[in-house]
Amino acid sequence: MTKGQRKTVILTFEPDGTKSEFKKGTRILDALSKAGLNIRTECGGRGVCGKCKIIVKDSSSLSAVTEAEKELLSSSERKFGCRLACACSAVSDAIVYLPKESRVRTRKILIEGTEIPVPAEPAIRKVFVRIPKPSLCDVRPDFQRLQNVLKEIYGVKTIEVGHQLLKKLPEILRNSNWKVTITIWDEREIISIDKGNTSEKAYGVAVDIGTSKIIGYLSNLFNGGLIATESMENPQIMHGEDIISRISYASKSDGSLKELQKLVVNCLNAIIFQTCKKSAINPKSVYEITVVGNTAMQHILLGISPKNLGLSPYVPAISSSINLKARDLSLKVVPAANVYVFPVIAGFVGGDAVADIISTGLHETYELSMVLDIGTNTEVIIGDKHGLTACSCASGPAFEGAHIKCGVKAVTGAIEKLQIDSEGYVVNYQTIEGAKPIGLCGSGIIDAVANLLKCGVIDKNGKFTEFSPSPRLRKVNGDKVFVLVSKEEGARHDIMVTQKDIREVQLAKAAVYAGCHILMKRKGIELGHIKKLYLAGAFGNYIDPINAKLVGMIPDVPTELIDFVGNAAGTGARMALISKKLRYVATSISQKTDYVELASEPDFQTEFASAMYFPHRDLSRFPSVKKLL
Amino acid sequence: MTKGQRKTVILTFEPDGTKSEFKKGTRILDALSKAGLNIRTECGGRGVCGKCKIIVKDSSSLSAVTEAEKELLSSSERKFGCRLACACSAVSDAIVYLPKESRVRTRKILIEGTEIPVPAEPAIRKVFVRIPKPSLCDVRPDFQRLQNVLKEIYGVKTIEVGHQLLKKLPEILRNSNWKVTITIWDEREIISIDKGNTSEKAYGVAVDIGTSKIIGYLSNLFNGGLIATESMENPQIMHGEDIISRISYASKSDGSLKELQKLVVNCLNAIIFQTCKKSAINPKSVYEITVVGNTAMQHILLGISPKNLGLSPYVPAISSSINLKARDLSLKVVPAANVYVFPVIAGFVGGDAVADIISTGLHETYELSMVLDIGTNTEVIIGDKHGLTACSCASGPAFEGAHIKCGVKAVTGAIEKLQIDSEGYVVNYQTIEGAKPIGLCGSGIIDAVANLLKCGVIDKNGKFTEFSPSPRLRKVNGDKVFVLVSKEEGARHDIMVTQKDIREVQLAKAAVYAGCHILMKRKGIELGHIKKLYLAGAFGNYIDPINAKLVGMIPDVPTELIDFVGNAAGTGARMALISKKLRYVATSISQKTDYVELASEPDFQTEFASAMYFPHRDLSRFPSVKKLL
Repeated sequence: MTKGQRKTVILTFEPDGTKSEFKKGTRILDALSKAGLNIRTECGGRGVCGKCKIIVKDSSSLSAVTEAEKELLSSSERKFGCRLACACSAVSDAIVYLPKESRVRTRKILIEGTEIPVPAEPAIRKVFVRIPKPSLCDVRPDFQRLQNVLKEIYGVKTIEVGHQLLKKLPEILRNSNWKVTITIWDEREIISIDKGNTSEKAYGVAVDIGTSKIIGYLSNLFNGGLIATESMENPQIMHGEDIISRISYASKSDGSLKELQKLVVNCLNAIIFQTCKKSAINPKSVYEITVVGNTAMQHILLGISPKNLGLSPYVPAISSSINLKARDLSLKVVPAANVYVFPVIAGFVGGDAVADIISTGLHETYELSMVLDIGTNTEVIIGDKHGLTACSCASGPAFEGAHIKCGVKAVTGAIEKLQIDSEGYVVNYQTIEGAKPIGLCGSGIIDAVANLLKCGVIDKNGKFTEFSPSPRLRKVNGDKVFVLVSKEEGARHDIMVTQKDIREVQLAKAAVYAGCHILMKRKGIELGHIKKLYLAGAFGNYIDPINAKLVGMIPDVPTELIDFVGNAAGTGARMALISKKLRYVATSISQKTDYVELASEPDFQTEFASAMYFPHRDLSRFPSVKKLL
Repeated sequence: MTKGQRKTVILTFEPDGTKSEFKKGTRILDALSKAGLNIRTECGGRGVCGKCKIIVKDSSSLSAVTEAEKELLSSSERKFGCRLACACSAVSDAIVYLPKESRVRTRKILIEGTEIPVPAEPAIRKVFVRIPKPSLCDVRPDFQRLQNVLKEIYGVKTIEVGHQLLKKLPEILRNSNWKVTITIWDEREIISIDKGNTSEKAYGVAVDIGTSKIIGYLSNLFNGGLIATESMENPQIMHGEDIISRISYASKSDGSLKELQKLVVNCLNAIIFQTCKKSAINPKSVYEITVVGNTAMQHILLGISPKNLGLSPYVPAISSSINLKARDLSLKVVPAANVYVFPVIAGFVGGDAVADIISTGLHETYELSMVLDIGTNTEVIIGDKHGLTACSCASGPAFEGAHIKCGVKAVTGAIEKLQIDSEGYVVNYQTIEGAKPIGLCGSGIIDAVANLLKCGVIDKNGKFTEFSPSPRLRKVNGDKVFVLVSKEEGARHDIMVTQKDIREVQLAKAAVYAGCHILMKRKGIELGHIKKLYLAGAFGNYIDPINAKLVGMIPDVPTELIDFVGNAAGTGARMALISKKLRYVATSISQKTDYVELASEPDFQTEFASAMYFPHRDLSRFPSVKKLL
């Protein structure tokens, strides 16, 4: 058979050396996905982000260079054989090299939330019972025997047992010589029957499903003690980095929704397995799971199409909390374990926001407070004991390194802190794990922009000023850029800030600030009324609050009122894991929180445009920044 | 490849011509089962009943003749190539002929029960709703929209929806332009959401799972109207005819239990499909199913091992009623349709007995009544409004034709009525569908024995008397037999009653009568107190009550007090299908009915031995019979 007749091609992926056969014409991005290799695709493979760079030696082995590639790749990159995996397909056998910066890497994320200040009052109860054996004088059925003991000794009035567990009852009772430990959920259903006495062991897992990362907390259900944590990249990332890409992929077909669901379920199982393994706990001792996530993530986990979340008026299928069995989601713990999925507030204000409120105590404080959970979507909640209002700002992935020329996620080598000396523009920086700098992560970007602003390199419009005398200010392809760390200074390549990058930051911070301001206006709140500003989210913990105010991203409250609460959503999930009462609180929060749909606010566009300025068109809103500049 | 090297054999089954390959050494019974051919195996393939006769031309193609075969097959049968499928295995390729009498045939069974005198009060409710479309001013989630309409217009306060259905909610709402019909179960769960207005259509299926037959009744849920019925042989029959064989097979392994469960589920699906097809109803309009059966059948349907029902003290896993989803049993109706499985009274007094009580109204009558549901196991219930007592008699399959030399089931050609003229022993008989006689079914057996007794051919001990002058009284292999219909008189073969047959009838009737008597004694009841005797079960409807009293099978109550109620269990299932209230009644009956375990009654053996006589050792218990004899 000659080469011309073949309908397939062999692709070898380096440096892994993975080799697979594909249909001729397969898009390289799809081939990578099939081969199980993760590549960065911040835009979901739409030829926009330019992050899915690959290198091939023989360019004729791939389809012709597209317009998108010409735009997003420099001519030197193209000369070197660089292509975008989303824009080219396989014509003949090829060796495809994945450069380090295209790969999805371990990220620096916040796993520990604040301590959880909630009394343990779990939804489950375990009791060790001795059941009288049947005899010809006592022919009560197995289940009735069990019921009677539970009623007489433990006061459990009416109890049910699922059909799957009932099937096993006769054998377990006899194999354990009628001594078993019963796990009762919500005082009404037996969810597990274990041989012998296991009444001291009860674990649960709280999970926070973020668009980018998934974190699990293995906890002791009786006291809330944190036993092990594990975080993983959300594997759905191969189908787009932001929620909108994920929604659009899930809406393609039933199959694609199921694929996304399977990816998140597999990841949850891996997290459960890892945390249990670390702590030598049997996953069959995990009796409860709580889940928080944004509305789309929660919908996808439940196999509910998030399609309508992506279409105006963006309504979810359901906002109430959902209880279902672990087996119904194929989660590998006790099959009848309850999975509690948080209630949501709106299409873009999910269970994570409810959990933020619970863990910060916003719903019960007398001090007017504000929570910003910063991520691809930034949730803003404002209020106190008397009422809560929330909105969601499409801040986009700029704070996560996407859409930024030298942006990277919070991975090893990312610049996370940065300071520019106005005299001579000396750049001092700190990278994650002190590694050789590879790019800027979110906090680094904020620091860079704030410093450029302070040094007068950019103006309040975000434009590079003409008079800047620094040699760091160069022109690349005719565009002005500011080089923070050059190759000569030890970077893997010149790490710079472009005019476009600054525009991206302006868009993102304007979205967040406009959201904050509209909420404040709705509630008739002025700056001085805010007694606490909580910054939550992985990003939130590394941000410099002064710089964040300087660029006008967050309201200009006194720095001492700003509190970093880390992964507040995860903390809320951990709290609900051990407290039944908090689940009622969650329901009440989800029902009572007012939701403001920014898209339908008449003054949103004006507010957004005004917030594009650094820090704002109306400087009176940023009294502390006014003094600094 | 020579014949000697082959590890498989080809078996051809005639007259069907089915040809299949099997491992050498496969038991013919198993080969038949794999080939999907049903053969009679009353004993479950244990080499006891001798019903699984097959014929092979070349006897060397099967394994050597066993002792069981020597005992159960006559020498002429063996000369003719007759073997028992359960006792031989394939050595080389063979043509296996299944004689007509070995095949499982269509049976005459009682499908129609009495009319159901219960007001319709179904567990489901259907409502057609128009739901306001979402807009930017009304972003309530889909489910909340639905909830609000149900609450405001229909007063449904709290409503749940299963995870599987919730997944489909957004699409159904939008595809139907927000006009849907909601089916609510038990005023608390949405089990179906249909496009448009289907509120007039709601069907249900009541099923009676007997050890031998399964009957389904497709009914209108709103008025109880019977739409179609279908009955099928219980396909589990290939693993034994009686409950004990079934229990023992199910207890072999998880796999064999699952196999039995699958057989019954497939049969239920076939019944649902057929009844719906007959009446042009979509199975997706079947919203509820009720199930009655004996305890073992119900356990097996639910996938619960019936093992402990076969071991003293014979306790069931559960006695309460069970509600589960159709999808959990793989029943092909509305996936979230509720399947209501009747509560049971004891290991051998199942949901069928509870249904018998409901349909005869035993639990609410002021007249002391008795129900006998005659089958392989005969349930006896006695009582009235003030209390009920039940027991189960191991009457065995004699009344269904098993263990009887010329016994057959109630199939075409079975003698169902018979009368012997004492002058000259002229035998008048009636066969099912008037066909050529092939054997005796249950009622025919009772008639035959009663008539032999009346004619003095047998005595009160059940022995053939010495002085009988009839040419019908012959010796076969040295044993006395009474030929009812000879080959010359038109039978397919000589149809006779043997000494052993009479013994079988004695054992069966003694079991039933002893049960009745012990229950009466327990309640301090005398014959004259009984105001009604209900005979239920397929057998019950065809029995001659005078002959039944004559042989001493049922208490000697005046014939006018005897009522035939046909398939009372099925009727009870139909009643519960349309009446929620009756399900509470069923629970109460199952809890309040006293159960008498005959095996632990000290006088059972004496009672049983005394009841072996025709009609009884103590003639004073049968005053009407005394006059006849």
